[in-house]
Amino acid sequence: MSIPSTMRASVLTSHKTIELQEVAVPEPQPGQVLVRVTAVGVCGSDTHFYETGSIGDIVVEGPIVLGHETAGEIVAVGPGVDSSRVGTRVAVEPQTPCRKCDYCKTGRYHLCRDILFYGAWPVDGSFAEYVIVDDDFAHAVPESISDEQAALLEPLSVAVHAARRAGVKAGHKVLITGAGPIGVMNVQVAKALGASEVVISDPIAHRREFALAHGADLALDPTTSGLDDYAEYFDVYIDASGNARAILPAFPAVKRGGTACLVGMGGDELNVPIAMIQHREITLTGTFRYVNTWPTAIALLASGAVDVEGIVTGRYGLEDVEESLMKAKKDPLAIKTMVIPGPQAKR
Amino acid sequence: MSIPSTMRASVLTSHKTIELQEVAVPEPQPGQVLVRVTAVGVCGSDTHFYETGSIGDIVVEGPIVLGHETAGEIVAVGPGVDSSRVGTRVAVEPQTPCRKCDYCKTGRYHLCRDILFYGAWPVDGSFAEYVIVDDDFAHAVPESISDEQAALLEPLSVAVHAARRAGVKAGHKVLITGAGPIGVMNVQVAKALGASEVVISDPIAHRREFALAHGADLALDPTTSGLDDYAEYFDVYIDASGNARAILPAFPAVKRGGTACLVGMGGDELNVPIAMIQHREITLTGTFRYVNTWPTAIALLASGAVDVEGIVTGRYGLEDVEESLMKAKKDPLAIKTMVIPGPQAKR
Amino acid sequence: MSIPSTMRASVLTSHKTIELQEVAVPEPQPGQVLVRVTAVGVCGSDTHFYETGSIGDIVVEGPIVLGHETAGEIVAVGPGVDSSRVGTRVAVEPQTPCRKCDYCKTGRYHLCRDILFYGAWPVDGSFAEYVIVDDDFAHAVPESISDEQAALLEPLSVAVHAARRAGVKAGHKVLITGAGPIGVMNVQVAKALGASEVVISDPIAHRREFALAHGADLALDPTTSGLDDYAEYFDVYIDASGNARAILPAFPAVKRGGTACLVGMGGDELNVPIAMIQHREITLTGTFRYVNTWPTAIALLASGAVDVEGIVTGRYGLEDVEESLMKAKKDPLAIKTMVIPGPQAKR
Amino acid sequence: MSIPSTMRASVLTSHKTIELQEVAVPEPQPGQVLVRVTAVGVCGSDTHFYETGSIGDIVVEGPIVLGHETAGEIVAVGPGVDSSRVGTRVAVEPQTPCRKCDYCKTGRYHLCRDILFYGAWPVDGSFAEYVIVDDDFAHAVPESISDEQAALLEPLSVAVHAARRAGVKAGHKVLITGAGPIGVMNVQVAKALGASEVVISDPIAHRREFALAHGADLALDPTTSGLDDYAEYFDVYIDASGNARAILPAFPAVKRGGTACLVGMGGDELNVPIAMIQHREITLTGTFRYVNTWPTAIALLASGAVDVEGIVTGRYGLEDVEESLMKAKKDPLAIKTMVIPGPQAKR
Repeated sequence: MSIPSTMRASVLTSHKTIELQEVAVPEPQPGQVLVRVTAVGVCGSDTHFYETGSIGDIVVEGPIVLGHETAGEIVAVGPGVDSSRVGTRVAVEPQTPCRKCDYCKTGRYHLCRDILFYGAWPVDGSFAEYVIVDDDFAHAVPESISDEQAALLEPLSVAVHAARRAGVKAGHKVLITGAGPIGVMNVQVAKALGASEVVISDPIAHRREFALAHGADLALDPTTSGLDDYAEYFDVYIDASGNARAILPAFPAVKRGGTACLVGMGGDELNVPIAMIQHREITLTGTFRYVNTWPTAIALLASGAVDVEGIVTGRYGLEDVEESLMKAKKDPLAIKTMVIPGPQAKR
Repeated sequence: MSIPSTMRASVLTSHKTIELQEVAVPEPQPGQVLVRVTAVGVCGSDTHFYETGSIGDIVVEGPIVLGHETAGEIVAVGPGVDSSRVGTRVAVEPQTPCRKCDYCKTGRYHLCRDILFYGAWPVDGSFAEYVIVDDDFAHAVPESISDEQAALLEPLSVAVHAARRAGVKAGHKVLITGAGPIGVMNVQVAKALGASEVVISDPIAHRREFALAHGADLALDPTTSGLDDYAEYFDVYIDASGNARAILPAFPAVKRGGTACLVGMGGDELNVPIAMIQHREITLTGTFRYVNTWPTAIALLASGAVDVEGIVTGRYGLEDVEESLMKAKKDPLAIKTMVIPGPQAKR
Repeated sequence: MSIPSTMRASVLTSHKTIELQEVAVPEPQPGQVLVRVTAVGVCGSDTHFYETGSIGDIVVEGPIVLGHETAGEIVAVGPGVDSSRVGTRVAVEPQTPCRKCDYCKTGRYHLCRDILFYGAWPVDGSFAEYVIVDDDFAHAVPESISDEQAALLEPLSVAVHAARRAGVKAGHKVLITGAGPIGVMNVQVAKALGASEVVISDPIAHRREFALAHGADLALDPTTSGLDDYAEYFDVYIDASGNARAILPAFPAVKRGGTACLVGMGGDELNVPIAMIQHREITLTGTFRYVNTWPTAIALLASGAVDVEGIVTGRYGLEDVEESLMKAKKDPLAIKTMVIPGPQAKR
Repeated sequence: MSIPSTMRASVLTSHKTIELQEVAVPEPQPGQVLVRVTAVGVCGSDTHFYETGSIGDIVVEGPIVLGHETAGEIVAVGPGVDSSRVGTRVAVEPQTPCRKCDYCKTGRYHLCRDILFYGAWPVDGSFAEYVIVDDDFAHAVPESISDEQAALLEPLSVAVHAARRAGVKAGHKVLITGAGPIGVMNVQVAKALGASEVVISDPIAHRREFALAHGADLALDPTTSGLDDYAEYFDVYIDASGNARAILPAFPAVKRGGTACLVGMGGDELNVPIAMIQHREITLTGTFRYVNTWPTAIALLASGAVDVEGIVTGRYGLEDVEESLMKAKKDPLAIKTMVIPGPQAKR
């Protein structure tokens, strides 16, 4: 298969403006591979960049291609990479650590201070026909995993990382607030790790139903039923909402010695019940992306331990990226939207 | 319900002789409960005691009731125990630690030097109509767990403990040698914890089929196919055979940094490939019974994460305990035999 | 040695009133021992109870003897306790867990919901000539540990527990805020565990000097020098002040992947920089007393790995308990005050 | 400082033959630095290669420079390396992992299947005036650490890694067999981590004395006193002898739940008391070199937590490498020999 010199890419050119441009296909450098993109999931952070131009300290300073939940096929390799990788279907782990600092060498490369991230300024992401990635961050997927499922390995990785940080173990009772894609992925992973009871809470009925259909044992509506009946009940609490109104009422429901892990990004500060955290020796922490999760996520998906069927609720072509970005925000029935760069896009 | 003053008990009176006797119903002491036995699993160690009169350092020095995989119902409580426990269906954890030594206080009460164990001299076990146990070692089971399943919580506990000691994690590839009840329980628990590939090895075809029907992804016949294709393949290796001929060929199949956990009891010594263990930093250990496993095993069983359907292959009354002890040994089709002390025994 | 029927005890009879009374010597129940008290450290919580009548949920509802940092000698044993223990010099771990709940059985008995604590209503403490304790919570100390040092094993236990919860490891850089007795004990323990750089911060010059004399590598005055030079510098941060003004500026000084452990009790809530905690995957937790720390604290003290020389800055008799309680609060030069119940008290 | 084009190097040209040759100074490739060697420790493995031509699977197939315990100064940098590193005094971590495999990315790069090791065929080591190393494996040392101490960071790293693998914790009782350099380093590290009692065993009186002078609490002569008095006594056992006659008697001295970690390389197989390991749930493992140890070892040495004073017992120039290799083997008074490549060598 010959690789064209130019490709279509959906470029965020300025505030709230994405243009479909014909740009040069990037060339894989030493250690890198070129991936033909087959599916890209749309993430809330993409929408946030599109709407506001920044997330925390990361500010978009010029034209950039968003998109970081990527599936594709390796079509070319850079110097030093085994050419037998060409033709491999892959899921892309969208980060490039320095590989040399203490964090990288102690198995925590996601905390590397020099890490680059896809679709985060200044690194182009994958709302495009091709994308570049380091060889070992292009994870081979078996035939049993579809392109869209391969793209879903990114949000699934968020959940795998959260479950590890939170210490989900067999027999645990787990509370999750927020039944969006990340919350539901956390339900799936918690069950796959042997959690015996997973309760999710979300004010939107459709999301509660979706979570119940994807493994949650119980879905609470926080507007009508609180967590009063669950005092000191859960071994692990994972927030996937980023909303202080969801998080604060959850603390009393965490067991002594339990863990609260905040995945969803919300405000800069949170007024936590610190005396309760001390008296009960609750561990409070958060997650930053993921590390070493793709192999596990692939194994869980391929073995059937997790099931992401039905997560994708809409598909768009490269020309409709703006519409796809706003879909999840505006449509409460949308769970996860995909961009399909090639001709195979079905809407 | 009134409690009779005497009960039927199958007493190991001397070498290879079990007599059905009418003996006094034991009286619960402070902190204890009296359990009416509804089902008792037969374990290889029961058979071993029956046939040889000892296991390792533990020697039968007088008449004793064997049996330690016990389900029942609390029918009376000793001083200091909440009387509301009467009527509770329970699974019995058949050990009584001192609760005061460093092991007991650091969460490893199974290593307590003063621990007593059911059906191990001089503590009577449960091949009888009633048995005594400490209140907190009589674990309540929900309605969804049957009497026989409740008895199976003991071998399931062996597997839960082994999985913890071996560090089975989501996405792991796990090798198990020996497809008896413990091996199959280990398959179930490994899958429940998210292991993505569980390979079992056993020379008996019937056991391989049984393991495949209970969650194993692959069952190897060691007499025809070795583990040569699996060099450095498995994250975790668990032996449930106690057989050096099964264990030694498994070491090369363990990944660098992996774990080999020996559950099955075999000889006193084992000539291990120590240079390989060092070079690959393999962790080699074993298990001694279990600790804090019943709550987890109950949760896994009640939530459906593990499935013990079809494990029980035969049922005997108290008058047929000797036959039940020899069944598993003689009949390759027998997986797990139950003794049902009450009139409900069906053979 | 004959045991008298009555003893002197300093009883908190009502708000801010402690009376020296002649009361009955308590009788050891099954599993308990009677300890003749030789030294009792005064803790800030004693002063707090004396001044306010409560700490958090624990309210003094009637006359009580305060004091829980206790050294003594076993002079009598209750039923079931080996009489050879009489004559043993001991340090008292002032808590009595239920020994039966999941927390007790998993090595976290300090989180037991039914735990009793010395000098906390309604359990009498040790500002008295004799005190009762469970046999295994009366920890034998070697001759090399003096009575006062044995009493100091309680605050040392707080620090051992904090170091464990915080995960202090060899080569770590550790920040401690608050250079009172607990802060200085934390310095000692951190160094004993191999921390290579321990920085302490306290606004009181005398305490900074004291910390430097007891192992701190550097002592900062927060009123003149902040932690700006230490951004993402410390592996572990331990607060021993309970003061939000000390705690909040410390978060930016914690490394990615580091831990912040709050030992000092302060307000009910704390407005933490949650986005920073998430982005850096900082683990925030607190400590509740201690668990399984006496054996380690005794070993560290006996081996010379920690040095508590010079911690005791004042000694009082039972008749002067009120004065001792107010000493630490009023005198900035006081670090740790001891009550010596017997005739040996030197003031 | 100008770098010459050739340098002196002690080359193992054939079996038991080392020649001092004038060879080309290697040129640092991208990511590498050139280090002027100031001190190189002689290791038993160097002697083993010299005498036998192989260690395990690693066979010397052509001329090679041995030596891997290296201190030096960066004198030039390859492409992509910050030139400000020139002039930095460093300790060399003598391994080069692939940085891309699962082991490298999960913090276990020492288990990388493609790792290269200094002085192990075909990678030249540092019995030479200059040596090449990856930038981040040339660890900066402070002024307080001398050149020879910097070279000793390699055997110290072996001990740091062993202590981690063995789980040495504060208050532990630790047994070490073998009082050579590695054994003594293990004594030092165990004490630095808070071990309260470290017992070492070695048949050579001089080594026992040396160990006692370097922190051991007790040194046993195995030819006259066994470990019978220490049944189930030690939390951790570390072997630094590689001798089955030292290792096997040590197992009964390990506590239930304890760890036995074999650092010394001995035979391929070891007939371990497997039933004891199972009953006591002892964890048996070994170490393979080290991973992420230099930063910790440097911190421990710089802070004074470990003390390697007096370890070096002899110094040789490049022309006397053969003599230095045989010294430790032949002279029981020799603990650690150094090769000093420059003119500063003092013999």
